Amino acid sequence: MEQTETIGGVLLSSTMDLKSFYGLDFTGSSSQVRLFDPHEVSDPASIRFAVCWLPDDDAFARYPNLQMAMSVGAGVDALLANPSLAEDSLICRVRDPHQADLMAGYAAHEALHFLRSFTLMKDQQSARIWNPLPMSPPKETRIAVLGNGTMGAAIARALSAMGFSVTVACRCEPREPQAGISYHSGANALDMACKGSRIAINVLPLTDETENILNGRLFNQLEPGAWLIQIGRGEHLHEADFAAALDNGQLAGASLDVFREEPLPKSHPFWHDDRLRITPHIASDSTPSVVAEQICASAVELLQGKRPQLAIDRHQGY
Amino acid sequence: MEQTETIGGVLLSSTMDLKSFYGLDFTGSSSQVRLFDPHEVSDPASIRFAVCWLPDDDAFARYPNLQMAMSVGAGVDALLANPSLAEDSLICRVRDPHQADLMAGYAAHEALHFLRSFTLMKDQQSARIWNPLPMSPPKETRIAVLGNGTMGAAIARALSAMGFSVTVACRCEPREPQAGISYHSGANALDMACKGSRIAINVLPLTDETENILNGRLFNQLEPGAWLIQIGRGEHLHEADFAAALDNGQLAGASLDVFREEPLPKSHPFWHDDRLRITPHIASDSTPSVVAEQICASAVELLQGKRPQLAIDRHQGY
Repeated sequence: MEQTETIGGVLLSSTMDLKSFYGLDFTGSSSQVRLFDPHEVSDPASIRFAVCWLPDDDAFARYPNLQMAMSVGAGVDALLANPSLAEDSLICRVRDPHQADLMAGYAAHEALHFLRSFTLMKDQQSARIWNPLPMSPPKETRIAVLGNGTMGAAIARALSAMGFSVTVACRCEPREPQAGISYHSGANALDMACKGSRIAINVLPLTDETENILNGRLFNQLEPGAWLIQIGRGEHLHEADFAAALDNGQLAGASLDVFREEPLPKSHPFWHDDRLRITPHIASDSTPSVVAEQICASAVELLQGKRPQLAIDRHQGY
Repeated sequence: MEQTETIGGVLLSSTMDLKSFYGLDFTGSSSQVRLFDPHEVSDPASIRFAVCWLPDDDAFARYPNLQMAMSVGAGVDALLANPSLAEDSLICRVRDPHQADLMAGYAAHEALHFLRSFTLMKDQQSARIWNPLPMSPPKETRIAVLGNGTMGAAIARALSAMGFSVTVACRCEPREPQAGISYHSGANALDMACKGSRIAINVLPLTDETENILNGRLFNQLEPGAWLIQIGRGEHLHEADFAAALDNGQLAGASLDVFREEPLPKSHPFWHDDRLRITPHIASDSTPSVVAEQICASAVELLQGKRPQLAIDRHQGY
């Protein structure tokens, strides 16, 4: 009987037990993929790929034949910045449609929570006050979605399905534009999408170009009293400009799910600012079954000498 | 110059100043439609239609030649039950796509608020606690939409666009079924749609058959610990069964926007029940411009001897 060729990978994270969290058990006899925790690896030279979430700076140094690093999340900024990952290694990331649905749900909830004054409604309930507020047709409300990857497209689709006027800012012309949604691409895309919008939702990838992109210049494009939904990366937000925009009323408030330091330190002023809704990086999460499936598929592609379909373009940064 | 034929209507409401709320000003020279408050009507015999929101029981008695009563809302139960409205008069109602969008937004917000534990998230923020909760893919969550009119269809579309598994209960086979949504019609439609659902959203019309339809039997079809979103009519809810389902945990809680008595009396126990989210009939509202346009169109159809397209089937009750 012929021996099936196998490929070995290692799980690298400074914060999570990836094997138990995602239930990554590939010991089934039919699988060509083997996955180990670092302490289980006796021959580091046999490891050809890594599955990662915030790996330590020196995490990759031990594996001389590593060809591919795969992020269990959608963002790869932590991998691109890791000093021990070889510059010619492939970088992949999970692309989970359910994760995009979760993201859309978070964004829709926060948008509606602001637009329909649900915090006030709850306060009125506590005081037994019956006081309906006037409402305007969703079509008259412009919402800007910053980013048109799997996440941005799902958010735009969900908000458009509820009748909002959605404008998406994307780097390139969209390959699959959705009916009823406006797109802006190119150098002025962010400004154009934000102009006159009542809500801005950030799902841009984090790159050198997008760091601090949520700044005073962008806030000023929005309608006065707008709302920011920040579900990209903490580094997108220019915190001093943000504080100024809140104080001068250009922003009514924001939903913040991502931060420069996570967990958000107890002493951070965001926590007790009434204008902010703070959540602990819960806008979305990968689905364990999808993560396992896409790790396997990518490892098998590597074994077969193909470029994995989930590999990113290092030059673009996503 | 030939005189254009005109048609006169009266505004009838026990609770609202319809003319100012909807900006119903038809005095433009080109309009064939004239609309008056009751005190402005000198010749009641000249009035051929009424525009209504909760008219008094005897509101129609004064107008012997009234042929049509039009509700500014989507429900016509108050008109059908009015003892002074002639049995052979036409009943119309506004059908506002923006109103359906608003309804979808309310339903989506309340569904997500429950599923994603946003009340707990807010409490955690107050206590500066960073504690992400596990989440499941929306596809694994079944949501039942009870009713497939303009409202039900919009709600189903919005939730489906966020990846939820949506099942719609409707009286007849849907004429325009939406891709990715399941339908149940006929006698067991409500039970079938609710079976195993985590959320039930009620947008049924109120008829003799649907009064008290939100009862113990229906709650027991749902997954234990389910959530009810009640945006139909107060009379749909069997309050004793509802209290029992909350107490035995079959329902985790509910979002209630409509009540048997509105405003909800200050003494009602719903107000201070932590398991309930109470809002003052704000799930949706007609858009003034659409209301004005559809009143005009219906009145002109009446003037031309046509059956208005917005007329309901009195036998069905909607």
